[in-house]
Amino acid sequence: MDYFRLVPPESDADIRAMLHELVRRTGLREAYVAMDCLRGSAPTNLRRHPVNARPYLLAFAVPYVWLVPQEIREHGMHLIVASNPRIPEQCVNPRAKNFHWADMTRAMFEAEDKGAHNPVLLDMDGNVTEGPGFNVFVVTDGKLATPDRGVLEGITRGAVIELCEKLGVACEVRTVPLEELRNADEIFISSTAGGVIGVTRLDGRILSNDRPGPMTARLTEAYWRFRHDGWCNERINYDLAVAAE
Amino acid sequence: MDYFRLVPPESDADIRAMLHELVRRTGLREAYVAMDCLRGSAPTNLRRHPVNARPYLLAFAVPYVWLVPQEIREHGMHLIVASNPRIPEQCVNPRAKNFHWADMTRAMFEAEDKGAHNPVLLDMDGNVTEGPGFNVFVVTDGKLATPDRGVLEGITRGAVIELCEKLGVACEVRTVPLEELRNADEIFISSTAGGVIGVTRLDGRILSNDRPGPMTARLTEAYWRFRHDGWCNERINYDLAVAAE
Repeated sequence: MDYFRLVPPESDADIRAMLHELVRRTGLREAYVAMDCLRGSAPTNLRRHPVNARPYLLAFAVPYVWLVPQEIREHGMHLIVASNPRIPEQCVNPRAKNFHWADMTRAMFEAEDKGAHNPVLLDMDGNVTEGPGFNVFVVTDGKLATPDRGVLEGITRGAVIELCEKLGVACEVRTVPLEELRNADEIFISSTAGGVIGVTRLDGRILSNDRPGPMTARLTEAYWRFRHDGWCNERINYDLAVAAE
Repeated sequence: MDYFRLVPPESDADIRAMLHELVRRTGLREAYVAMDCLRGSAPTNLRRHPVNARPYLLAFAVPYVWLVPQEIREHGMHLIVASNPRIPEQCVNPRAKNFHWADMTRAMFEAEDKGAHNPVLLDMDGNVTEGPGFNVFVVTDGKLATPDRGVLEGITRGAVIELCEKLGVACEVRTVPLEELRNADEIFISSTAGGVIGVTRLDGRILSNDRPGPMTARLTEAYWRFRHDGWCNERINYDLAVAAE
């Protein structure tokens, strides 16, 4: 929010309390919880400049949302390499999460046109970045790699990296050339809306026998096992009297 | 709209008739008329993909809006060269007009921080592009130049180029390096919301005696004189019975 000069009136502690209250009130045990900060508009009596707008938060908790339906998670996602590159980080920093997605949206239409589920975008130098709402991992000879730059350092990307440490799997965070993606033994994506999801086709070409590969399966299983054991969980006190009432 | 896959149900002829009707109903003789196409959202019963959204038009006519108030038009605008580059046209095509402005917005905050009115953004190679809502022209030795790439080919930019032909002023449409901007005799911007507006400071440095220069004044005068004589006008029939009633 600092990067985009989208600073809401609430403190981090306020936001934390608000999100706890939100989930508590829904009573949801497996929720997708999101918060967005919106710019708003300058009041009509002031100059029309974003400096005069009052950014505000919007948050929601809904039953857990999967990035893609179960059938696709089982059979693997079909990706294309988008024709248009990702916006460079010098122009708009992707580490500051945002939905300023004209590049992503264009690529989503291209994927749809080609009968694929999602696009992955390259940077201006032809290296792998990310897709709309997910990070990308490649598996080659039992080792993982995921792009270090030009991407959101997603919460679930971080969880996968931590998971690799727990499991003793090598995972490098570095430049991933397109050729490495094309020649990978396995590809998977990470998203808070789905955890680890295998990719089985890239530009129509079948990978790993058209089913998520063994490393992807191993990480998917471990991810949910750890998650259900409380890993990366934030405990909600559903019994607490509702504070705001 | 085609570029962004934002195709509304209305035909070009429908849109033209709608805009005529809009201005006619307001009765405004000097109006700022705008239309936007918005994506909308996918209906909740369909997959959340922009392909399932139904883009729609929004149009308004209001009394003529100036990009900057009269005092600034008289004294000249103060610009800064933004620290962050403009999004490259391979990522998002600026010739397809849009308000996907995270780069512009960031630069507008930087201008504000530095006490300037507006930013001008460079491309990834350090050449001049445009600012939020305007094109940029440089004047050197009585000749004009304006960037050919990485910019919206604005209606008023086109009008200025045509104006130069009418007046016998040389105007080149080509790469404009930052150095040329810094060393220009005069700088001005073009916008439908203001026509030709002189720039008198760049990164705090005073240009042309801190007042719009002679070429800028000549073009400003000629622009409005031709406009008032009907140049680039679209005739509205205010007497017509209101068709939709």
